[in-house]
Amino acid sequence: MFLRFFTNQFDFFDRFEEQVGHAVEAARFFQEVAAQNRVTEEMLIRMAQIEHQGDNVAHTIIEQLNKTFITPFDREDIHALAMELDDITDMIHNIVSRLRVYDITGVDRNLVEFAAVIEQSVRAVATAIGGLRHSKNARVVFDACVEVNRLENVGDVMRNRVLAELFATAKDPILVIKWKDIYQDAETVLDVCEDVVHVVDSIMVKQA
Amino acid sequence: MFLRFFTNQFDFFDRFEEQVGHAVEAARFFQEVAAQNRVTEEMLIRMAQIEHQGDNVAHTIIEQLNKTFITPFDREDIHALAMELDDITDMIHNIVSRLRVYDITGVDRNLVEFAAVIEQSVRAVATAIGGLRHSKNARVVFDACVEVNRLENVGDVMRNRVLAELFATAKDPILVIKWKDIYQDAETVLDVCEDVVHVVDSIMVKQA
Amino acid sequence: MFLRFFTNQFDFFDRFEEQVGHAVEAARFFQEVAAQNRVTEEMLIRMAQIEHQGDNVAHTIIEQLNKTFITPFDREDIHALAMELDDITDMIHNIVSRLRVYDITGVDRNLVEFAAVIEQSVRAVATAIGGLRHSKNARVVFDACVEVNRLENVGDVMRNRVLAELFATAKDPILVIKWKDIYQDAETVLDVCEDVVHVVDSIMVKQA
Repeated sequence: MFLRFFTNQFDFFDRFEEQVGHAVEAARFFQEVAAQNRVTEEMLIRMAQIEHQGDNVAHTIIEQLNKTFITPFDREDIHALAMELDDITDMIHNIVSRLRVYDITGVDRNLVEFAAVIEQSVRAVATAIGGLRHSKNARVVFDACVEVNRLENVGDVMRNRVLAELFATAKDPILVIKWKDIYQDAETVLDVCEDVVHVVDSIMVKQA
Repeated sequence: MFLRFFTNQFDFFDRFEEQVGHAVEAARFFQEVAAQNRVTEEMLIRMAQIEHQGDNVAHTIIEQLNKTFITPFDREDIHALAMELDDITDMIHNIVSRLRVYDITGVDRNLVEFAAVIEQSVRAVATAIGGLRHSKNARVVFDACVEVNRLENVGDVMRNRVLAELFATAKDPILVIKWKDIYQDAETVLDVCEDVVHVVDSIMVKQA
Repeated sequence: MFLRFFTNQFDFFDRFEEQVGHAVEAARFFQEVAAQNRVTEEMLIRMAQIEHQGDNVAHTIIEQLNKTFITPFDREDIHALAMELDDITDMIHNIVSRLRVYDITGVDRNLVEFAAVIEQSVRAVATAIGGLRHSKNARVVFDACVEVNRLENVGDVMRNRVLAELFATAKDPILVIKWKDIYQDAETVLDVCEDVVHVVDSIMVKQA
């Protein structure tokens, strides 16, 4: 029992690294998708797989949280982190699904640009999560959080610019409806990344 | 005092069953509305009444939670359950209200189909809530939760299908705007049902 | 140490009053903006400043919360209050930003009306927050909360009325898209004010 408790225990840090790994995979795949002419059935299936894997890890973390008495950091922070990381992958999945539902074809340079910023942001989130385990990483975690905040501002400005452009130039209202949703979703991914680093920030402050 | 504490205590299980009863009533009524040619003033009033009744129960639960020291399960789960159940009724109210605001007339077979799935899902939520009181019901609760998750996936696929159809065929952008909102709201009801069973799941795991 | 603890401690009440002050400033400024013909670059900058100041206070409160062991009321209520108050200023900022992105010109009497109701609601929120410090203010706090709830209902009715009007009369779908978003955002500010007084309500009940 003693050994089980100390050597075999569920490692929340490992699971969070695994979960953010799926988010990075989603962001990387989204970049590929954005560079293609259209979303194929195969791309949809691949994206759903990544989302499903992320989902499973989130589920495992929550289940374990509910069974565990002593946790490496506050229970509500563990819960929030699992949920927010899940939201990153979900939102990226949403965009890919929407591109297909809206039957969007052709490469949109704004979306390609968004995909690049999203990938940078999710990678910075992964760096922050990866540094959580050891307090000696505080600087690395802090810098990654600052970067995620910076990229959220970049995304905000981009969203405003592309929407202004869309409304100023588009003739077809149906296209306005479609792209407004897609750009909005893209910006939301960056908002969710910022939410994640707010939780990371809370964890760091409490451990200081 | 002793007697009052033990015999007269506020019963959270009773109140949750009452609250989910209003959600079932809302879902049942929404099916009726979806089968009609238009939303009348009387239907709006009836829907607002159901929503108001659900609201009152939620308020009573939260107020009692704030006054009660020992609760049958975790405080945050009680809070989340009351809020999420309230959201089911609110979202259904939203759709009915939107049908009126958007002056939608005629029976839409997609909406009728959504209303049927929503009713099934809310009834499964009611089964899960009804089983919470006794651990011997674990199997029934578990099966109901699985059913709600399944129906959420059904709703997801339906939403994608009807939106793809809408964008592919609709000539009038105003109609696209209206129906996109309505189908999206319908799918959100199923998401909220899934959120409820996530809370139920947490409660079950902690009690195991 | 003793003195530091008792005399120099971080005052959550002061900070919340400061934070709601920024929300009132945002609401007051939004009224000015709504009465103008268009959103200028200067207005955008001013609005971003107010939002940034509110953000800073929220950040200070959360940071202090994470470092403080004994708080004047429940930790989760402090957290929720800081987040919801921040949301008021954020949402108002969103509307102003959207007016600019959508290149809206001319004074819209519906928006002017919304801005007036928003200002009343945010002032009532400020009254509720200002009364939290002393239990002798319970009546004042209670009345302010009732007023915020009332104004949320007013906003709901207004939103439904202006949207029905918009869909019934607008010829240009692009205009429908723009104004639907703006009116929806305006109504959301009133929802967030209601969320704030729900937290205030919780705090009052627990202290009773």
